[in-house]
This record gives sequence, structure tokens and C-alpha cells, in this order.
Amino acid sequence: MNQQLRGLARTYLPILDWGRSYGRGELSGDLIAAVIVTVMLIPQSLAYALLAGLPAEVGLYASILPLVAYALFGTSRALAVGPVAVISLMTASALAPLNLSSVSEYVAAAGVLALLSGAMLLLMGALRLGVVANFLSHPVIAGFITASGLLIAASQLKHILGVPLHGHTLPEILLDLARHLGQINLATLVTGIVALAFLFWVRKGLAQVFHARLGLTKPLAATLARVGPIFAVIGTTLAAWVLNLPSLGVAVVGEVPTGLPPLGLSGVDWGLVPALIGPAALLSIIGYVESVSVAQTLATKRKQRIDPNQELIALGAANISSSLSGGYPVTGGFARSVVNFDAGAETPAAGVFTAVGLLVAALFLTPLLYFLPKATLAATIIVAVLSLVDLSILSRAWRYSRADFAAVFATIALTLLAGVEVGVASGVLISLLLFVWKTSRPHVAEVGQVPGSQHFRNILRHKVETDPGVVTLRIDESLYFANARRMEDLILNRVLRDRDSLRHVILMCSAVNEVDFSALESLEAINRRLDDLGVKLHLSEVKGPVMDRLARSHFLEDLTGRVFLSQYDAFAALRMNRADRM
Amino acid sequence: MNQQLRGLARTYLPILDWGRSYGRGELSGDLIAAVIVTVMLIPQSLAYALLAGLPAEVGLYASILPLVAYALFGTSRALAVGPVAVISLMTASALAPLNLSSVSEYVAAAGVLALLSGAMLLLMGALRLGVVANFLSHPVIAGFITASGLLIAASQLKHILGVPLHGHTLPEILLDLARHLGQINLATLVTGIVALAFLFWVRKGLAQVFHARLGLTKPLAATLARVGPIFAVIGTTLAAWVLNLPSLGVAVVGEVPTGLPPLGLSGVDWGLVPALIGPAALLSIIGYVESVSVAQTLATKRKQRIDPNQELIALGAANISSSLSGGYPVTGGFARSVVNFDAGAETPAAGVFTAVGLLVAALFLTPLLYFLPKATLAATIIVAVLSLVDLSILSRAWRYSRADFAAVFATIALTLLAGVEVGVASGVLISLLLFVWKTSRPHVAEVGQVPGSQHFRNILRHKVETDPGVVTLRIDESLYFANARRMEDLILNRVLRDRDSLRHVILMCSAVNEVDFSALESLEAINRRLDDLGVKLHLSEVKGPVMDRLARSHFLEDLTGRVFLSQYDAFAALRMNRADRM
Repeated sequence: MNQQLRGLARTYLPILDWGRSYGRGELSGDLIAAVIVTVMLIPQSLAYALLAGLPAEVGLYASILPLVAYALFGTSRALAVGPVAVISLMTASALAPLNLSSVSEYVAAAGVLALLSGAMLLLMGALRLGVVANFLSHPVIAGFITASGLLIAASQLKHILGVPLHGHTLPEILLDLARHLGQINLATLVTGIVALAFLFWVRKGLAQVFHARLGLTKPLAATLARVGPIFAVIGTTLAAWVLNLPSLGVAVVGEVPTGLPPLGLSGVDWGLVPALIGPAALLSIIGYVESVSVAQTLATKRKQRIDPNQELIALGAANISSSLSGGYPVTGGFARSVVNFDAGAETPAAGVFTAVGLLVAALFLTPLLYFLPKATLAATIIVAVLSLVDLSILSRAWRYSRADFAAVFATIALTLLAGVEVGVASGVLISLLLFVWKTSRPHVAEVGQVPGSQHFRNILRHKVETDPGVVTLRIDESLYFANARRMEDLILNRVLRDRDSLRHVILMCSAVNEVDFSALESLEAINRRLDDLGVKLHLSEVKGPVMDRLARSHFLEDLTGRVFLSQYDAFAALRMNRADRM
Repeated sequence: MNQQLRGLARTYLPILDWGRSYGRGELSGDLIAAVIVTVMLIPQSLAYALLAGLPAEVGLYASILPLVAYALFGTSRALAVGPVAVISLMTASALAPLNLSSVSEYVAAAGVLALLSGAMLLLMGALRLGVVANFLSHPVIAGFITASGLLIAASQLKHILGVPLHGHTLPEILLDLARHLGQINLATLVTGIVALAFLFWVRKGLAQVFHARLGLTKPLAATLARVGPIFAVIGTTLAAWVLNLPSLGVAVVGEVPTGLPPLGLSGVDWGLVPALIGPAALLSIIGYVESVSVAQTLATKRKQRIDPNQELIALGAANISSSLSGGYPVTGGFARSVVNFDAGAETPAAGVFTAVGLLVAALFLTPLLYFLPKATLAATIIVAVLSLVDLSILSRAWRYSRADFAAVFATIALTLLAGVEVGVASGVLISLLLFVWKTSRPHVAEVGQVPGSQHFRNILRHKVETDPGVVTLRIDESLYFANARRMEDLILNRVLRDRDSLRHVILMCSAVNEVDFSALESLEAINRRLDDLGVKLHLSEVKGPVMDRLARSHFLEDLTGRVFLSQYDAFAALRMNRADRM
């Protein structure tokens, strides 16, 4: 019993596992990684909060307790959770239709969204439903992330240009933009462009400077370069203060409350729950997929393992703690996790140290952010999300298969034109329908024996031996209701073409992984109809599980022909019979 | 050109084919069959019209022009179209929510339903979309027909008991019934029970009488016995007239207009179209599936073929002609087609002769129907539909597979509890979801070599040879997005279990019929992760079409291992390598 409890505790609290052997080596790695990630996270968390339509400090709050919660429950050693771009966009899109009147109501609604999302993730984890995420195909995810990146970048143009934009779809944003083109604020535009240019240079240039001038190794230089955005923050904040840019119309972050995050849920309108359930579900699944794939990749590099179902629980706990400490929905982020990993984080303790760093920022640094231009934060977001945009997925999918292309194209087009929720839901639906459509039209080959071998190949592609009395059809798909009737027609038409000489039809089932009840009835119908035509039906190479199932019906007793273990046996036996008769 | 036109005409007008060689032999067979089917159809068409909530004569009208239209366009030699039970129930269920105030409005709305259904069938035929019907699985169809039969029988109790019932679901009907239990009309009940008893006896007994007393052959006697219901009609009509049953409260058919069917659409409210589109689509597909499976079965018995897409056109034409001649939706019926076939119908001309018979009935016999008790018609329906009820589908599906059972159970339960449309739509959805769910959890076997052979079998089921450096996984499913990530986890977990000795992983792909883009990316991820672990990934027995597709990506170049034509080659090569190293 005690043993069992301890096992349970170790499953649900992985910290008991790595915490036990925590030593000085782990500590130094974790501390260095935490410093770098903290400096990287400060501007990012402020920027993503603005993207979600929330006050800047909400981003900081969402980067404190959630990191501690993940450190307790998470199975990845290097995942860094917090606000991320796509989830922030989805939060904005979920809150917009609520038409709330005050900022504090928005903040409370974002908390409810995080709470719902956390509860769903916990529930999925408890039910071990991590598999649900599998129904998001790679092209749909890639298309969705690319389209979201474009949407986010477009939506941030307002901060760079200093004009108000309100749309949540690309046409709305572009129309708004065209309407306000005359009102562009020059000082804001200059600030934004300088910040953008600096940040684009930082991505490549800063690492070279660190490497060439400071003599750091290339990987270390690359990792340190990830703190680059903080220089843009410091530079433009100083410029805004010294040059008094707000007087020229440059929007700045302004008053940010100092202190601990507010604990508990306050001012929550529980009437919002029904409207937020759907968005919370989509956001949870997208966040989970993004987080787990990052965690998986990093874990394998160090030959570690993650537990997908425990990850659901950890992300659920992170979101619930975010909702209880003034935050909004969070998940594991790609860029920050890679930085954390590269900077040497050994255990989730790095996340706790990062949380302490951000707590310090929330306690003492917020007054310094008064003059931080919103254009700088927008530039941070644009540079970050443009690295997510990968339109090559379109051409790669096109080259590989038209069905995958259709799914990715529809996801991108609908996300841009109709918003994130419609986009991702349609993508999932379209990929399921295309899969069913494909399996409903299976590849069927008429095969013959390769001379001098026991192999059977497509008669259209290979020079093979056939027999006028026997036709063998190899069915390259599981037999189920959507293709069962097609199979009936196909076999019947083939038999009627040679009805005078044909005596035997063999179905070669090496690729038939399943025969459902509809297909069983179709096989029975085929068997009866062929019998009416004086033709016997045989099966070959039927798999064990399929055979087990067929044996539960009357089919094998009613079958006019036999079931052969191998196609070679079948062909040899049936053509021999014919030879006897001649 | 002329040649081409003639070919087209022969495809779309099969009558040009069989009409050319029509002779005396065909004529006599067709005439005899037509007489029997006419006598069988008169009570049935009246009864089904009442079931659909329409005046009795609408049933007669729907059995005239549609038969001629099918004779022109249909490819089955023996199919008999007209009003059928399930389609009549679906018509009633489609018209009920419209809350129309007069009978003439109901008749016009039924005409619109037939027109819409006809147009949809024609369109599907022109687009060669007969495959859509394949998405109705056999268990869903069987469950739907059984549940509809129960619903129809329950709904007809009102005519047997002489009480008003209005419900369209089983709970509604039973509640109505309980409420009106005190108002049962005794004379009606006696008429109904006598008719029911006679009709149940007729099914078996009449054939024996014909065979034993009149010396007819058994098959001929069985066919002639199908006209039995006409005796119930004549007997109860005479009784109602002689005993003046209407004065005792027995409902009779009453005044039925004499004359030709009204031609053209009149009094149509086109505003009903949006409300009827959905029901028309469901009704078209159900009608088509029922009709085509009967046609298919009968055609094979005579080694003939039907063209599923041309059948769509023929049923479309039949429904449009029904809508233009005072009728309502029709399709090919099971019982009447079998009778037509057994009575010797050789060509669709039998349908034309039947139409003439029903025209004569509409012109001259309707005054004789005045005293026909509605209880007799209800009894006809009950006996006919109870033969459709087959609850054994539940136990057969349960024995064969739980997924099929779930689909059939849900279809039956939802059809009974929530009506025909919800029932069949849920059935289709549930079977699709279950299929996707099954394929998302494929069977994967670790295989080893059967000693002394080139065969590889599951190590859990067979005594096979394995190698500590090589693990071979046989994947029994196409790889696609819903199972791709699962495969990643599975392979990775297997490799991490033996990470010290393992050098090679072979994926045996003999049952992989497709690798979609998501699965390709998963394979790439597996390849990279195994590489991080120092393990090489190999493939064996990859199918041609899958290989063609993989070759369009970078995967084969990036693959750390090789692609082997056979699993035997793969195992031999890799275990040898290991032996070399030792």
C-alpha cells in the first residue's frame, strides 16, 4: 500500500524523481539558464499580453506561478511555459465577441479562460485522453501556425503605425488599415522601424558580435544573442524618456502596477463560461500539441522520456495557477524552451528560478517600463512570429499529396479569412473527411505470379503468369462500410467480364487490417452472387485478427471456396484443379 | 459523332437496348407479372399514402408515371418502383414540422419533396456520385430499417384502435396511446384484428392452399399468395358496407376522386424549399440505397448488370414525374420487386403494364374503395413492415464487433427516440468516428523469424528467432495523422527499453497502404530521434505506391538505414552486420 502510494506520487509528481538527486552541477546549469530565459521573457511576456488585448503586467503574472506548477508536475526537463504567441491570439479572438466594457472585465474573462482550459487539460490527463491531440494533422498544425503568425504580424501593424485596428481576420485588418492610412504617426513609425531593424539584425548579427568580438564559442554566442530584444527595450525606452516621445504621439506602456500578482479569482462573471467553453477546448488542444512536440524533441536529444498524459496534468496545473494569480492561458513555448535547453537547464528547477526572476521584475522593475514604446513590443512580436511563418508547407504538401495540400490550404485560407477558431476546426474536419474519402476508394490490383518465384505482382506493372480460370485481386485497404459496396461492384464487374472461362476468384488479403460488419455482409453477398454465376470465392493471406473475427460469423462456413495461408498455395491449388479437369 | 450520340443515348436510355429485341416471350412474362404486381400494389399504395399523412389517391398517382419513367431510364430489368414504407414514414416526418393547415397544402408539399429529391438524385447521377451512398454502413441501414419498421407499426396502431395519435417518435406515440386508451373503438379493433390475423395467415397459409388444393407448383403458389391482401380489402370492404360499420365508428377511406392524376405542380409554396432540402437529401440517399441493393441482388440472379449511376438518374426521373402527377417520393421496393421478378418479369415493360393497371384502378375502381376500412390498410402496413424488423442485427453485430454494435444500437435507439432524421444522421456520424478511432489505434506486432523459414511472426504468439541488436515492428495500418504520433511514442518507448543493445529498428510495412504527410513528418522525427540515440531506422516490404510517394520527399535521403524489399533480406543483412562487428 505504502509502496503503491509512493509509485502513484512519483507518477503524478515527477519532482520527487529528479529532486532527490539534485546537486551543485544541476544548480549552476539551471541558474545560468534561468537568467537568460528571464531576460528573454520580460519583453516577450509584456508583448504577448498586449497581443491578447490585456494589460502588460498580466503577461508578467502569467510567467510566475505557472512555471512553478509545471516544475512540480511536468515530465520535461527543459520545457519553459508561459504566454506564447498563438495562444495569446486565440485568447484575443475568444474574448473579442464578449463585448466587455472594461479592462478589468477582460482580465477576469481571460482568467476564466485559463481556468476552463486548465480544468479541461486536467480532465483529459486524468482520462488519459492525450490521443485527442493526434487528430490535428501535421499539415493542419503547420498551416494554422503559419496563418496565425501572419494574422499576428498584421494585427501588430497598428502599434508600429500608431493607428487603431480592430479586426480579427486578415480582410478586416487590411480594410481597417486602408481606412486609417492617413493617420499614421511618424514618430511611432520611426520607433517601430528602428526596433524592427535592430531585432532582425540581432537574430543573426548579435551572435557574430559575441563570437568575433568577445571570443565566445558559437553556440554560447547564439544562446546569449537571444537576450538581444532587451537592448531594444532599454534603448527605445531611454529614447522615449529623453526625447519625450509620448508628446509626439508615441504610445508607451505607461503605469504598470508594482507588486505581487493578485491571488484568487475576483470579479469573475460565471455567465461567460458557456461562451468560453468552445474556445477553451480548441486553445487547450493547440497549446498541448505545441508544448508536447517541443518537450518530445528536447527530451530525445538527452535520451530522456516524457509522459504525454502527465504533460496534460502539468499544463492543466499551470493554467489553473495562472488563472488564480492574475494571468491568462499559457503553454510550453518553442523558442524559450530551446534557449533554456541550450543554456544548460538540467531540471525543471530552472523554471522555478525563472519564476523568481520574473517575480523580481514584477516587484521592482515595472516603474522602469513606463516609457517603453508599444511599438517596440509590437516589433518583438512581429520578429518572433515571422519566424513561425513557413509557407513552404504549401509546396511541400503539394509535392507529397494533393489531399494533404487541400487540408493545409484550407486551414491557412480559413484561418486568415474567418479567424483562428473556424480555421483550425475546418482543418481538422477536412483532414478527417479526406482520409475517409481516400480509404473509400482503395487501390486494388489484379495480380499474377512472377515466373519462377512465390511472389505475386500487379499484372499491369509486371510480366507475370495468370490463368484463364482464376483471377486474384489484391485489396490494398481495410474493408469497411465506405468501401465495401465499391468492392462488391468491382469484383462483380471483373467476373462478368470473363464469365465464360472464370471458375475461381481469390481475394489476397495481406493488406486488409480489418473487416467490419458491413464488409462482412458484402463478402457474403459477393460469395452468393459469384455462386449464382458458378464461380467460387477464395481468400488468401488473411491476418490473424481478421480471421478471428470472421470465425465469429457464418461466413467461413458459407464460403464456396477455401481460405489459403499463402497466395502461392492458393494459386497452385486452383490452377492445378483446372489442369486436372482438362 | 453520330456513333457517339447513339452511344450516349444507349447509356442514358437503356430502353433502346432491351426494347430492340422485345418479343412475344418477354411480353407474356411481363404481362403476367404486371397483373400480380398491380393487384398487390393497389392496397399497398393506398396504405403507404395514409402512412405518409396524405389522401389515399396520392398513393395510386405515385404508382403510375414513376413506373413509366423508371422503365425508360432504369437499368434493372425487374425493379418495381412506387411508394414504400420507410420513404412514406420519412415523408410524414419531413412534412409534420411544417404545420400546414389544409390537406391540399400537404399534398403540394409532398410534391415539392418529391421534386427536390428527384432533382438531387438526377444531380448525383450526372456527377456520378453514387458512392455517397456507401457512407451508410450496413449496420446503420439495418438498424434504421428495423427502427423505422417499429415506428411505423406503432404509428398504425391508431387505425387499428380507432384513437388519434400524433407522435413521430416512439415515446410520443406510446404516451399518446396511454392517454387515449379509454377511447378505443371496439368495431374498429375487431376489424383490425380480423384483418391482421388474415394477413399473417396469408403470408404462409395461402401459398399452401394454392399448392395443395389448386395443384399449383410451390414457387407459383408462393408468388400468387402475394396478392392475398386484396382478399382482406374485398372482405372487409364488403363487411363494412353490409354491416354499415361506419355507423359503429369504423373509419373508412371514403370519397376518393376518380380520374387521371392531376398533371403539373399546383398550389406550391416555394418558401417550403429551405425546410425540405435536408429531409429530401436524407430520403433520397436512403431510397437510393434500398433500391440499388434490391436491383443489384435481382440482376445478379439472372447474370445481368445494373449501372449505379444510371439508377440515380432513373430514380430522379421517377421522383420528378411523381411530383408532376400528384404523387409523392417513391423508390424501388423490396417486396414488390421480388414478386415482379418471381412472377416472370423480363423487362421494365412489366412496370409500364403495372402503371396501366393502376391507371385503370384510379379511373374506375376508386368508388369501390368508399367502404374500405382504414384499419385494413393499417393491418396491411403492419404486416409488411414487421417483416422488415430484424432485431437479430443487434446480437449479430455484438458478436462480430463492439464498434459495429455501437453504431447499430445508436441508430435504432435514436431513430425510435428522436425520429428518423436524427437517427440515420447520427448513425452515419458515429460509424465514421468509430472507424477513425479504430484506425488511430493500430495493431502493431514485434516480429521475429520463424526458424528455418523466410516468414516473420508476432513474437508474443510464435516461437521465433530474434536478435538483441535488431527490433522489427510490423505496423498493421496505414500511417496517417491520427496514428502518426502514437507510432512515434510506441517506437521510441520500445527503443528506450533496450537502448544499450539496440542498433537497428526495422519497420515492416506490408500492411501500410498509405503514408500521409503527417506520418511522413513522424517518420522523419523518428529517424532523427533514433539517430540521436545511435540507432538506425530501416524499412522493409514497402508497397509501390507508398514508395513512389516517399521518393517525392527528402525522407529516403535522410533515412539513416536502408529500405529492404523483403523483411527476410533486412533481418539477414542487419544481424550479419552485427556478427561482423563482434
